[in-house]
Amino acid sequence: MMKNRTGIWIVGAWGGVATTVTVGWLATMKKVVPAWGLTTELPEFSGYEMPDWSDFHFGGCEVRASSLAQSAEELVEQKALDAEIFQAVASSLPSLDAEIVPGILSRSGKVVEEMADWANDGGQTAREKVAAMQDAMRAFVKRNQLEHLIVVNLMSTEPASPLNSEQEAWTCWEALDQTLDSPECPLPASSLYAVAALQLGYDYINFTPSLGATPPALEDLAVANHARMMGNDGKTGETLMKSVLAPLFAHRHLQVMSWVGHNIFGNRDGVVLDDPRNKATKVASKSHLLTQILGYAPQTLVSIEYIQSLGDWKTAWDHIHFRGFLGTPMTLQFTWQGCDSLLAAPLVLDMIRLTEWARRRQFIGKMDFLACFFKSPIRVEEQGFVRQFEMLEAWIHAK
Amino acid sequence: MMKNRTGIWIVGAWGGVATTVTVGWLATMKKVVPAWGLTTELPEFSGYEMPDWSDFHFGGCEVRASSLAQSAEELVEQKALDAEIFQAVASSLPSLDAEIVPGILSRSGKVVEEMADWANDGGQTAREKVAAMQDAMRAFVKRNQLEHLIVVNLMSTEPASPLNSEQEAWTCWEALDQTLDSPECPLPASSLYAVAALQLGYDYINFTPSLGATPPALEDLAVANHARMMGNDGKTGETLMKSVLAPLFAHRHLQVMSWVGHNIFGNRDGVVLDDPRNKATKVASKSHLLTQILGYAPQTLVSIEYIQSLGDWKTAWDHIHFRGFLGTPMTLQFTWQGCDSLLAAPLVLDMIRLTEWARRRQFIGKMDFLACFFKSPIRVEEQGFVRQFEMLEAWIHAK
Amino acid sequence: MMKNRTGIWIVGAWGGVATTVTVGWLATMKKVVPAWGLTTELPEFSGYEMPDWSDFHFGGCEVRASSLAQSAEELVEQKALDAEIFQAVASSLPSLDAEIVPGILSRSGKVVEEMADWANDGGQTAREKVAAMQDAMRAFVKRNQLEHLIVVNLMSTEPASPLNSEQEAWTCWEALDQTLDSPECPLPASSLYAVAALQLGYDYINFTPSLGATPPALEDLAVANHARMMGNDGKTGETLMKSVLAPLFAHRHLQVMSWVGHNIFGNRDGVVLDDPRNKATKVASKSHLLTQILGYAPQTLVSIEYIQSLGDWKTAWDHIHFRGFLGTPMTLQFTWQGCDSLLAAPLVLDMIRLTEWARRRQFIGKMDFLACFFKSPIRVEEQGFVRQFEMLEAWIHAK
Amino acid sequence: MMKNRTGIWIVGAWGGVATTVTVGWLATMKKVVPAWGLTTELPEFSGYEMPDWSDFHFGGCEVRASSLAQSAEELVEQKALDAEIFQAVASSLPSLDAEIVPGILSRSGKVVEEMADWANDGGQTAREKVAAMQDAMRAFVKRNQLEHLIVVNLMSTEPASPLNSEQEAWTCWEALDQTLDSPECPLPASSLYAVAALQLGYDYINFTPSLGATPPALEDLAVANHARMMGNDGKTGETLMKSVLAPLFAHRHLQVMSWVGHNIFGNRDGVVLDDPRNKATKVASKSHLLTQILGYAPQTLVSIEYIQSLGDWKTAWDHIHFRGFLGTPMTLQFTWQGCDSLLAAPLVLDMIRLTEWARRRQFIGKMDFLACFFKSPIRVEEQGFVRQFEMLEAWIHAK
Repeated sequence: MMKNRTGIWIVGAWGGVATTVTVGWLATMKKVVPAWGLTTELPEFSGYEMPDWSDFHFGGCEVRASSLAQSAEELVEQKALDAEIFQAVASSLPSLDAEIVPGILSRSGKVVEEMADWANDGGQTAREKVAAMQDAMRAFVKRNQLEHLIVVNLMSTEPASPLNSEQEAWTCWEALDQTLDSPECPLPASSLYAVAALQLGYDYINFTPSLGATPPALEDLAVANHARMMGNDGKTGETLMKSVLAPLFAHRHLQVMSWVGHNIFGNRDGVVLDDPRNKATKVASKSHLLTQILGYAPQTLVSIEYIQSLGDWKTAWDHIHFRGFLGTPMTLQFTWQGCDSLLAAPLVLDMIRLTEWARRRQFIGKMDFLACFFKSPIRVEEQGFVRQFEMLEAWIHAK
Repeated sequence: MMKNRTGIWIVGAWGGVATTVTVGWLATMKKVVPAWGLTTELPEFSGYEMPDWSDFHFGGCEVRASSLAQSAEELVEQKALDAEIFQAVASSLPSLDAEIVPGILSRSGKVVEEMADWANDGGQTAREKVAAMQDAMRAFVKRNQLEHLIVVNLMSTEPASPLNSEQEAWTCWEALDQTLDSPECPLPASSLYAVAALQLGYDYINFTPSLGATPPALEDLAVANHARMMGNDGKTGETLMKSVLAPLFAHRHLQVMSWVGHNIFGNRDGVVLDDPRNKATKVASKSHLLTQILGYAPQTLVSIEYIQSLGDWKTAWDHIHFRGFLGTPMTLQFTWQGCDSLLAAPLVLDMIRLTEWARRRQFIGKMDFLACFFKSPIRVEEQGFVRQFEMLEAWIHAK
Repeated sequence: MMKNRTGIWIVGAWGGVATTVTVGWLATMKKVVPAWGLTTELPEFSGYEMPDWSDFHFGGCEVRASSLAQSAEELVEQKALDAEIFQAVASSLPSLDAEIVPGILSRSGKVVEEMADWANDGGQTAREKVAAMQDAMRAFVKRNQLEHLIVVNLMSTEPASPLNSEQEAWTCWEALDQTLDSPECPLPASSLYAVAALQLGYDYINFTPSLGATPPALEDLAVANHARMMGNDGKTGETLMKSVLAPLFAHRHLQVMSWVGHNIFGNRDGVVLDDPRNKATKVASKSHLLTQILGYAPQTLVSIEYIQSLGDWKTAWDHIHFRGFLGTPMTLQFTWQGCDSLLAAPLVLDMIRLTEWARRRQFIGKMDFLACFFKSPIRVEEQGFVRQFEMLEAWIHAK
Repeated sequence: MMKNRTGIWIVGAWGGVATTVTVGWLATMKKVVPAWGLTTELPEFSGYEMPDWSDFHFGGCEVRASSLAQSAEELVEQKALDAEIFQAVASSLPSLDAEIVPGILSRSGKVVEEMADWANDGGQTAREKVAAMQDAMRAFVKRNQLEHLIVVNLMSTEPASPLNSEQEAWTCWEALDQTLDSPECPLPASSLYAVAALQLGYDYINFTPSLGATPPALEDLAVANHARMMGNDGKTGETLMKSVLAPLFAHRHLQVMSWVGHNIFGNRDGVVLDDPRNKATKVASKSHLLTQILGYAPQTLVSIEYIQSLGDWKTAWDHIHFRGFLGTPMTLQFTWQGCDSLLAAPLVLDMIRLTEWARRRQFIGKMDFLACFFKSPIRVEEQGFVRQFEMLEAWIHAK
């Protein structure tokens, strides 16, 4: 086992975000790109003994046969990823492909199941699926002499799980554990990965709005195994803007009458979100924060639509109708044109680094200090972006 | 003298913002409008013994003959001010007009001087102008049995003053005092009002980008006379947006390559700003904060143009060109359509209330806790809106 | 009977558009407003003997009890209609209310049926409903000594009718006539009004996307009775923009890859369109023209959403993704902020005037020269706005 | 001399537009790109015997030493030109570079003169400069056995010329000819190229707002020599949009109160336009058409600003403030994000083809049928885009 050498287990390892994470990690180590976009590379945070980028080793799983090069080429085609950066790291990709194994399916939704041509058939019950995944994780750790593993969920969004906070299994790990043997186990794949990781003392980060490690029962499991966890749903575009702009209206005491947001994009996530069941999970994650920041619920509308020609370019138009002193209605509109994968990837890298650093600093449990990276930080009340960032600053600068 | 009864001396008392302040103050006291738009009416700040709105009495001065009703009708015509609100308070306006006296001119710029048909001719030297204004202020205080006076500068923007930080008069009151007798006194009217107020122990707030009480010599004068002062330039629209959005780019380590802002509007301030000398003062106030928040200077462009048909509706289009991880350029654009006067007026009322409250809490000197209301808070480093608001929260909740 | 005196029978006479038509007609005759917005008042068309505005007399029917004053006040409240214009004509409204009788319902959709508290119960079969309406029309004509009647449908959008071009009744009036006695008569109210009008030799204009006089059988009925007809769906905002912009892409041979249009508004039409069955009719009317102008079908998306705070202010955001020479994708976005009723009303007045003029010029049948006023001009191929306008110019300037 | 083989003499042959024209011409002949963007490749125009793309041979002149490959690489870097298209034609570029000779300077403006490191010093007087250029043109024609030559001006915009319509030389070629010997000859380089071409019976197209062949004296010169000429200023972006949208407002009788257009971009043309003298020429060309289409002059504002990070991506924001029936102000805004060179290049290719076709059809003189390609078509009244396009259709379909 090598000291300070930690594995990264990407769930959905050939997807657009995962490919950008992997290419970007290689390019950062090779110093062919500057540090822009990485929060942990801010001048403010220099001078701390954070993990080096070279302390990590990448592997993971997928349910759709592909390769890092093929995914990267799609991103180049869509004018998201720069062709020269891809070329600079292309020779390193095949050996990373070799570390990617078939993933598991469970309540993943019809669209994903139809796409899945490479899933692991090794188990019938949820418990068997978890066990098979743990075998794969342990083999990766052993083969590469790793000290630790961080599991990052980058799969497409799942439909809502039937598990909810009314049920005992929501808060009690023993009750949740028993469902693993049931043919009606309510846990989707994102949560089975969480169980697999946390039981082994590995860390788990959910970058999607899927259930993942949301139930308090899984936070308890993490603490019991001295592991770390956090989620949900990386905050990269329109929702990031909401968490930046809503405090303006709140602090100026301006009444938001309605907030309409239309999102269009054309990557594979878009195909999955075209299924209304998967989309409902995503919209819920994008909507709640306005009420939390404003203290009341304006009329809201969030649409997410698949427009093929846009590829990875996610375009959002938001129309905010508000009024303040003396009541005359006014309007703020914004248009955000960003590459989804390029905005998401550095957040994943930052969180990998901060999670590993948290381990070295003996932090255990739910990492609230990562709230600024998430649309729906698990059981964190603060939704304003700047105040969430101050939580991160406080944690980094502490002791 | 009545206990807790404080005069408000509006400089530019028949302008659009001043009229909205006055109408809005009356409407708020009569409870014909809800509290939206007023920061000091936020639920978070309830439970504190802030001054009542009825503790204030309005007067002031002007250089352009008009009346509150006439100015209010212009705002109704421009679909900024609601006709019913105006009607609800119209009968109270003539008695307030009677408290408005001719103002002074000094380095006010060609456009303002041409508009000025009602200026005070009582003095030739700056010292004589100050003395005449002090006579008017004292008469207002005495006539209305007021305990105190707060002077608020709402005049149009002045051209840049020749006074600068290289000169002794910048930091030393005694040196600055001597210039008052010189025919080349560098102080513009906005600063003469500050001198007039602070010498008498009255408070001074500069809601414009003009020089006002900016020189440290005037902060010293305030402290010596147990008075309070702050400025500069109310933060109401595009610059407010900049101070909200720039922290997003800073904290996400996104590189802002260029930030272009075009402002169009058609009220009287627009006429004054069409003179390049006056406009230069305004643009400087709108530009500096990006560099302070980002830590580097992106290419910026700020235009302010007079488009008559817009009246009081200030429309801003901003185009932010940025890149982050792996360098692909992305774009954020926003369009802000707001009524200038309606956005500015509640800030003036909030600051009047907070300044009076500061007096009752024995605060003396420069009121940094008001930073969130200003484009260029005097000698305050923090330019991010949320962190500036936290400064206000801390002050209110302190002790 | 008075020479050159023609009745206008508004279906949906207390709706927002109808109220604006009525108020605007009165204001135009009283000359309290300039002629802006009226195509027939263009300098280019002066010098022709068009009907005078005073040649018309207004009446009609409604299914929802209200009054012109009440509807006008709502529009003033929403900052659409100017309060002074309303005041200038308010005294004339009650006598016009007295000419409005209960309307009929038929396949009008659940939302409209629930709103309808004033419908005519005089008939069970479609034929009886038509007869009852004809009685009301004739009584209006007789009472006011009118020479002729023009029926204008301004009701909310109906769900799609089961009648289609595969059926004999689509093209053959005799076959369609027979359905009027059937309990399953496929005709919605909009078409029953058309039958009622055309049988009596009265003219019929359908300003909505409902079926109206679309079937060729009804064009034949019009010709047989020397009447005039046209529709469908007034072209006022986003679709007007499409018919103006699409020729740019067509003539420059630019490939439109996708055209996304999001519409938000908060008037009563919005409530009706929130029912997916009614909305489907509207979306179909807004989508077809791109394919006709471009010659191929780009990916399109049209959303129409009810956002209460907007009232009559319809806001559209369109995102057009295109590429041309050498293939690099480019973008055109537009935001349209207009008052729905104020944009629609002058088109209704123009068409009333042109229809009456057509009668005086002995024109009979389908009025293709009105194509520029419609989203879906019946059986007119040309969809480009300028070329449609040239059709109107040619007709006006002809002999 | 080869039959039907015509030379193209590009003035400014290493600029962004010229490079895109050249690369695009090669790529079109090699069929590595589809025909999108080329008007003459519209299905509507198929079936006519237009010149083949292979009938042309490219040469020209420049005042700034560079190469086609270097310019193309800059466009690839700016994400305007596709890297693969450049690669597909790169091997053909050096032989085309060899046909480019040093250009002439005359009243070209300070910025261009400072950039010019490769200008032709062969003449002192304007007449000598013309003669030198004619020598170069004839040598190119002879060397390549060409039947004819078309000169296309793609230089950066010049400052306004002192020549104007009050002077005899404006309309009389003999008077203009005499100025060529004067040290104060008022003609800028763009016009000297026109003189050089037209005297030899060669055609001249001015794609810039510079003076070029604007004076009627030069139209007469063209006719006298059986040549063809047209200009000015290719209509590619914001002004194209104006000529498409203004007819909407005109035909609907909507009153445009103000039309504000802000343009930002970062290519070399932007550097030149940062000089106010050059910019004035451009702004004039972008402003006039609204008044011509609307019939009255709304308040307008056009800004053009150099923002380096945008490269060839010209972004325009337009804000149109209008009102119609009953007077309530409404707003249309658009944002245009396009690659300047890619939008301009196909227009140049189309006009080359149409000009050569006009020659084969024995057309002589000013080519009004090209009006739809120009911001300021010389002495053509019609400014609406669709009607200009109809002029082209009529010419093509004629006989």
